[in-house]
Amino acid sequence: MSHSPALLTDLYELTMAASYFGRGMDRTATFDLFIRRLPKQRNFLVASGLEQALEYLGDLRFDEGSLDYLDSLEMFSDEFLAYLAGLRFTGDVWAMPEGEVAFGQEPLLSVTAPLIEAQIVESYLLNCLSSNTMVTSKAARVALASRGKAFVDFSLRRDHGGDAAMQAARASYIAGSAATSNVLAAKRYGIVPSGTMAHSYIMAFGDEEKAFRAFAQDFPDRAVLLIDTYDVEEGARKAAKVAIESRAAGNRVRGVRIDSGDLASLTTSVRKILDEAGLEDVAIFLSGDLDEYRIDQLLSDGVPADGFGVGTQLGTSGDAPSLGSAYKLVAYEGRPAIKLSTDKITLPCPKQVHRSFQDGTLDHDVISMRDEAMEGRPLLRQVMEEGRRVHRESLDDMRDRCSDRLASLPERLRSLRATDEPYEVRLSESITSVVQGLSGPRRR
Amino acid sequence: MSHSPALLTDLYELTMAASYFGRGMDRTATFDLFIRRLPKQRNFLVASGLEQALEYLGDLRFDEGSLDYLDSLEMFSDEFLAYLAGLRFTGDVWAMPEGEVAFGQEPLLSVTAPLIEAQIVESYLLNCLSSNTMVTSKAARVALASRGKAFVDFSLRRDHGGDAAMQAARASYIAGSAATSNVLAAKRYGIVPSGTMAHSYIMAFGDEEKAFRAFAQDFPDRAVLLIDTYDVEEGARKAAKVAIESRAAGNRVRGVRIDSGDLASLTTSVRKILDEAGLEDVAIFLSGDLDEYRIDQLLSDGVPADGFGVGTQLGTSGDAPSLGSAYKLVAYEGRPAIKLSTDKITLPCPKQVHRSFQDGTLDHDVISMRDEAMEGRPLLRQVMEEGRRVHRESLDDMRDRCSDRLASLPERLRSLRATDEPYEVRLSESITSVVQGLSGPRRR
Repeated sequence: MSHSPALLTDLYELTMAASYFGRGMDRTATFDLFIRRLPKQRNFLVASGLEQALEYLGDLRFDEGSLDYLDSLEMFSDEFLAYLAGLRFTGDVWAMPEGEVAFGQEPLLSVTAPLIEAQIVESYLLNCLSSNTMVTSKAARVALASRGKAFVDFSLRRDHGGDAAMQAARASYIAGSAATSNVLAAKRYGIVPSGTMAHSYIMAFGDEEKAFRAFAQDFPDRAVLLIDTYDVEEGARKAAKVAIESRAAGNRVRGVRIDSGDLASLTTSVRKILDEAGLEDVAIFLSGDLDEYRIDQLLSDGVPADGFGVGTQLGTSGDAPSLGSAYKLVAYEGRPAIKLSTDKITLPCPKQVHRSFQDGTLDHDVISMRDEAMEGRPLLRQVMEEGRRVHRESLDDMRDRCSDRLASLPERLRSLRATDEPYEVRLSESITSVVQGLSGPRRR
Repeated sequence: MSHSPALLTDLYELTMAASYFGRGMDRTATFDLFIRRLPKQRNFLVASGLEQALEYLGDLRFDEGSLDYLDSLEMFSDEFLAYLAGLRFTGDVWAMPEGEVAFGQEPLLSVTAPLIEAQIVESYLLNCLSSNTMVTSKAARVALASRGKAFVDFSLRRDHGGDAAMQAARASYIAGSAATSNVLAAKRYGIVPSGTMAHSYIMAFGDEEKAFRAFAQDFPDRAVLLIDTYDVEEGARKAAKVAIESRAAGNRVRGVRIDSGDLASLTTSVRKILDEAGLEDVAIFLSGDLDEYRIDQLLSDGVPADGFGVGTQLGTSGDAPSLGSAYKLVAYEGRPAIKLSTDKITLPCPKQVHRSFQDGTLDHDVISMRDEAMEGRPLLRQVMEEGRRVHRESLDDMRDRCSDRLASLPERLRSLRATDEPYEVRLSESITSVVQGLSGPRRR
């Protein structure tokens, strides 16, 4: 995101901050960012958005225009505005690395900082971690459904603005995509850009075969011909003709794409047309309102598709377009904090999550106190220390981690259907006893 | 959006453009951008995103970094890259003004330009118009459900990135919101910013009454006290005590906010507590997973709520998080173009939409040729001429238009439930005869 993001915050962060400032309430606070519970269509999440969150924290500045605007609201003292002018993020941050599999209640990120700093960053961190984790979790499902076949992010045109499109391409790459149609994302993230022609290309020529021939000549090693502008099987025969000409000229048509109609039956008949023309090496790519469910169905039915362009449903996480995220105060001035309203309990204290495996497969997680000795692999690591980043990794590291973790999921969680036996996330004895100690006297 | 947006495009726009360029195919083309059909949860749409689209078209430039990147792909000729370096948008644009009610198949925007220019802008225009129209249409439903009571955009933390949050605040304002929590959006768009405290504020004090008193002192004319951190009714009594103290000091607590629990029964009992304390002027604001359905239910049940903070569902259009948008070639070199694949027919020719009313209420629309003489109010207006903007209006103009149009909707379309009698959109005789003329010979 690139909108002077210090102001990309909810007003209440600033009114609370102003009140704390006036009262000298700026002791050390810890806030946890977590997803309360998984959407019912999700058996697991894949954490992401940390890189952007750390960039935001590192760059946090209220510039002059922002301060002038806040001054114009006549809500804030000159002293507070002067404080904001000098504000830098000086806290410690622990987080799950990107590409890690995560579950409900587990901190994705934990901020320990002077109260005012920790409060002001809430809105942006929630937006960033929630939306990135949402779309990476969706992309991981598409990756599982694709069973090693290529899937490509085609979501730009339907994402919720430009940032969402950048996030979707990056998330897809972490989850294992082969490419993205989004050129800017390809440039920024070093992803392979993908795309050849739209229906309008065929229509501008007014003649499908001429259009195919022209494109195959202009892109002699990478043409993928879109064959559903008029009749798909006729389109396939014309594409085959052009592919054979192309081969004779020492070039190669890489594939055809079908974007509408009954994809299962069309793919089968197009494969037959291509094979009968001796074009076993010409691939068939499918697109058009695909998601993990449709891809899974197509592959389960043995449809001979070689790759998938996935757009709207991937980029918007259409079946679960938000995550119930929270950023909650869990400690202030060294004492644990707890919120006990009717339906939303927050676990107190800075925490760690330990993961235990059985025969290489995820077995259960335990949420413990940060320094509590526990068995299992600790998932949260320190990523910022007194405002300095102490963690950087490449997108490929995240992608490798995601691939490894997806392979370690038990079958019931890898399923696209909601499991009736959710992954077990336990609380350690210490956390449990702190919750009981804090909640006892205040319960109704 | 602010990411050097010329590259925020699908790669296929550039491969097609390169092919057209090499072949000198750059005659005048017209593309229509439209929503194929409404999501089943929508009886109407509210057009928006035009201002951002026109800014994009006006600013379109491929900068040096973008050109270097494209060069590095080894797909494009030096001549084409030189052409891109000088590319400016020089076309004509017709569009529905923002805040106008729209339906499926109706062009929201229509571009007439040299083919290459018109093609390259596709991806961005689709992203921009689709996502803005999606969220404005959702916000209009929230406005209808709120029945004149205030609703406030609280969506920043759950939107899909920063652009989505800016769009959601702007869309909500067009649809009639009272305010936004998003400070940057408030600054950029001149919307009232709104917000006071989170649960963490109460928890940092560790004592609800002290926290309320502190906040009421620090913001003597605008405090809204959040009363659901622990027990809501106890919270209300403490808030009442502080409000009475505040009044005695010549100040005013504006309201309380309830963010969790059974909002209907809690609001009723909190209203009683406040009224019995003589605090009829202290308002009750509700938040917490609200959407138009819950607001409608609460108000239908007579719950004495004074306003609503609406976040996730508003900002993500949770029940319809995408629109099935298309950008289709409808004419090239003065001849109509048509696509006839199995399930997606495109209407040819540059068009106009005329709307007819019955007793001040929307009756039906007719999609006609651009210059066809028709009865009714034409909805598309020219907004750009040879690359120059010829249309600008304020957000308040758009908001007034939206308010007027929502008031003119027939009852069945204003309903939150899907109507079983969708709005009638007819095709003019001329359009119908062009479709028949073009589709006849090519049908299977």
